[in-house]
Amino acid sequence: MSTPTPSSSNVMEQIVSLCKRRGFVYQASEIYGGLRGFWDYGPLGVLLKNNIRDWWWRNMVECPPIGPDGSIVDMVGLDSSIIQHPKTWDASGHTATFADPMRKCVKCGHILRADHYWDILATQSKWFAELMTATENGAKTDVDTLARWVKNKARKSAPNLAAVAQPTITPPETADVKAIVHALADNNEPCILCGGALGSPEQFNLMMVSYAGLQQTKENLVYLRPETAQGIFLNYRNVLDTTRVKVPFGVAQVGKSFRNEVTPRNFIFRSREFEQMEMEFFCPPEDALKWYDFWKHERMKWWLSLGIKPENLIFRDHAQDELSHYSKATVDIEYKYPFTAPEFGELEGIAHRGAFDLTQHQSHSGAKLDYFDQDLQLRLKAEGVADDEVKKRSRYTPNVIEPASGLTRAVLVLLCEAYSVEPRAGVEKFEFFKFKPKFAPIKAGIFPLVNKDGMPEVAEKLYMDLRQSFACEYDPKPAIGKRYARMDEIGAPFCVTVDGESLKDQTVTIRDRDSMSQQRVAIDKVKSFINEKLDE
Amino acid sequence: MSTPTPSSSNVMEQIVSLCKRRGFVYQASEIYGGLRGFWDYGPLGVLLKNNIRDWWWRNMVECPPIGPDGSIVDMVGLDSSIIQHPKTWDASGHTATFADPMRKCVKCGHILRADHYWDILATQSKWFAELMTATENGAKTDVDTLARWVKNKARKSAPNLAAVAQPTITPPETADVKAIVHALADNNEPCILCGGALGSPEQFNLMMVSYAGLQQTKENLVYLRPETAQGIFLNYRNVLDTTRVKVPFGVAQVGKSFRNEVTPRNFIFRSREFEQMEMEFFCPPEDALKWYDFWKHERMKWWLSLGIKPENLIFRDHAQDELSHYSKATVDIEYKYPFTAPEFGELEGIAHRGAFDLTQHQSHSGAKLDYFDQDLQLRLKAEGVADDEVKKRSRYTPNVIEPASGLTRAVLVLLCEAYSVEPRAGVEKFEFFKFKPKFAPIKAGIFPLVNKDGMPEVAEKLYMDLRQSFACEYDPKPAIGKRYARMDEIGAPFCVTVDGESLKDQTVTIRDRDSMSQQRVAIDKVKSFINEKLDE
Repeated sequence: MSTPTPSSSNVMEQIVSLCKRRGFVYQASEIYGGLRGFWDYGPLGVLLKNNIRDWWWRNMVECPPIGPDGSIVDMVGLDSSIIQHPKTWDASGHTATFADPMRKCVKCGHILRADHYWDILATQSKWFAELMTATENGAKTDVDTLARWVKNKARKSAPNLAAVAQPTITPPETADVKAIVHALADNNEPCILCGGALGSPEQFNLMMVSYAGLQQTKENLVYLRPETAQGIFLNYRNVLDTTRVKVPFGVAQVGKSFRNEVTPRNFIFRSREFEQMEMEFFCPPEDALKWYDFWKHERMKWWLSLGIKPENLIFRDHAQDELSHYSKATVDIEYKYPFTAPEFGELEGIAHRGAFDLTQHQSHSGAKLDYFDQDLQLRLKAEGVADDEVKKRSRYTPNVIEPASGLTRAVLVLLCEAYSVEPRAGVEKFEFFKFKPKFAPIKAGIFPLVNKDGMPEVAEKLYMDLRQSFACEYDPKPAIGKRYARMDEIGAPFCVTVDGESLKDQTVTIRDRDSMSQQRVAIDKVKSFINEKLDE
Repeated sequence: MSTPTPSSSNVMEQIVSLCKRRGFVYQASEIYGGLRGFWDYGPLGVLLKNNIRDWWWRNMVECPPIGPDGSIVDMVGLDSSIIQHPKTWDASGHTATFADPMRKCVKCGHILRADHYWDILATQSKWFAELMTATENGAKTDVDTLARWVKNKARKSAPNLAAVAQPTITPPETADVKAIVHALADNNEPCILCGGALGSPEQFNLMMVSYAGLQQTKENLVYLRPETAQGIFLNYRNVLDTTRVKVPFGVAQVGKSFRNEVTPRNFIFRSREFEQMEMEFFCPPEDALKWYDFWKHERMKWWLSLGIKPENLIFRDHAQDELSHYSKATVDIEYKYPFTAPEFGELEGIAHRGAFDLTQHQSHSGAKLDYFDQDLQLRLKAEGVADDEVKKRSRYTPNVIEPASGLTRAVLVLLCEAYSVEPRAGVEKFEFFKFKPKFAPIKAGIFPLVNKDGMPEVAEKLYMDLRQSFACEYDPKPAIGKRYARMDEIGAPFCVTVDGESLKDQTVTIRDRDSMSQQRVAIDKVKSFINEKLDE
């Protein structure tokens, strides 16, 4: 049971709160009480998300890394529909197996994920929080205190808990919170809401349904994609036929996906609507392990390029018994989230999927998805390989290496990574975001020192020029210290101030968010000064 | 009845076919037989779409136009969920009124839009196509020929047509195709598939449903947004509270929307899943008409900046009886599509929505959405307005000006606008796309004249440098004429060729797509040469 430590859950709460307060992420439909598992990206959140999206696109589609043998890597982009033909999900295996084990409370009907029970209990149950308080976070258990809780508070917070109904059940004297919960629930796992007994686990499919057509009939049933990847497999043949790529090549796309998570949690880490960045790399089966290794390391380099500290990222190879039956190898890149620390949690998976996907779609659709590799044929012939074997090896169903990551999860990682607390701006624990300049939603605040004496005119003109190159904000109003603090909070790396001297010598001050130091720079050099930092 | 003329429908077919052939737009789930009303954007389509998206974002969010009084316009971006709380759509009126009149065939159950009946018949009915052939496109009607069609072919293509079942019905001698159809169907509109009688029109809601939660219950029912706009209204208060904007200000977003169109048609013009670019501009009621006028003209300027010929765009003011009850004024920007020519069809709507949206959400959610306008208060006081009136006028529910357009529709417009047929590349009717360079998916092809003699090395190096600045393709292989032709087809404005001379004097040729003329340019000037053209 990995109960979050109070300090880490505090950090997460503070990040969520700062995100709301400064326009990064809002709860969706907040004015209607919210909708669990859905989030809206505010003015700064959308800029941060776009910056990550564009950097991924640049490094995957526009300027992919040089291949393992030093040659140019063929890569193209795609944007496929969220809704595809339902047969897609039969072929991919999602209709049959994309399911989580769920348990339903026999008393109140609440449904939760069986395999995350203890985590969910620890983070979402009101009565469990009371229990934790009564046991001093499970450190010390006093039978009388527990019995008092059962007789008093628990009657309200966990009315269907077995111990509440049957006073014969007495809490055991142990420091093991799991054992106490089991005992109070008469050897069951109790509902996190009402304490009632949970039914047996059942598999529920996580794909969200819709209907293409006016009537909710079986014929019209469609699914909102649970991953963008399948849209790429469906277009593998189209891409080969209509562009100049040859195997090996990759197809990349960014887009929304949906999963009917029963217990969405940890802010935007696990939500029902989210955004992915996925790439499928098609290669000859005999080169697949080489490409797997290549992408594994390239993807780690990419995450590091976002300014994430190396100690916060690890590779986690999937154990043999953890692999999908078709996967030859899979590795996760994991990040040390505040809610997993000191452990790590999933960020990106790089999977060697073999020929599974194309084989499945070939057999379900009847389309020919194999490939004749002329380059390989020439290479093998030159190597003196026997004709029979050349023939056999140069026609194949390509293998696939899939680096699949979450864009919205990347936003979360940059928020966690950048979140800083320091004494500054007259506050002992001043909270702000230390984004790497390239990814900061706003790169610079442009200020007149005072809102008069010709300064606003100069500052406005500079702002109008700078905004052509990068996102910045013009702010003429409160005291300069307040304006600095506000820019620090939202993670803007630079503040450019026009003061009295500016009018005489055409220079301004540029203040650095991290060092808080200032330097004078000529007005006509501000753009190149900041652009240089953004290129780092 | 606006039956497309054969030539214009031909043009559309050619565009669709070129789009497929060159990787712009594929039918979604094509290998599973496709899914009506869903499209995938291929390697070139997604680049074209991103170019338009980024240009809109730049001109609306990053560098919005200077306001009507010469001051900076406050504008922020947003990315709200596709799925919002269902109450959203009660407040917006969508659950009650976002519906089309539909008629259902009493024989085969086919459902179609009542108000588009004749258009749909003309474009999608097999038996009607036969009828048109038999009547020489309705120009000449011969009763015997028609009677023969009814007795023979129609038994198969329109088995449920009244005239097929009742030989007493005889086709009238008239050139009016509508009258003939009516007569053959015993004074009804017949089903476009089987010829059966259509039931009375009924209203069907066009929102696609889903369920957030594992069970398909009424409590879990949600909708896929039919427009992005409501996500902005839901966050109006959040944006005001968490950023520094003051009324007037705008919130802009780009994203997918869904509509359960019964008869999706005209390629990507009317599809079930599509992408929008919408902005809501919140302003004091007394300034609303000024802002309406401002955005109306700014939006037209923006469309012209895409390189669309002025004669292909018009304003169409909504007539008084066409306006929504809450709208004070609405104007459409219309484009002359091949399937509407010589008429125009919808591209963007700019609506003066009054205070309707915020008032609705205020009354449905209970949230306070009115605004106290300190700037207006000061202004009115300075103008000597009486205190009572100042108080009354400076607290209000903002009015909204909404420029709402389709990103995927913009893609269609640029495809139609750029589609050209000229004798070139040894072909009498060579088809290609003449995109304005800024929006071309690929800006340049980089070629070695021959794939040897040191040319590939120079060309590859140039390619690796240029792709840092704009999308280009490296192609070493077929005859140079073929490579030019291919680049013309996909609308790449420039071809850069490394030849024998390049190795001696460090120059290359740059060929222009439109004039087909070439000029020699120093290798180290290629980037700035092309970048300059892209800035135009």
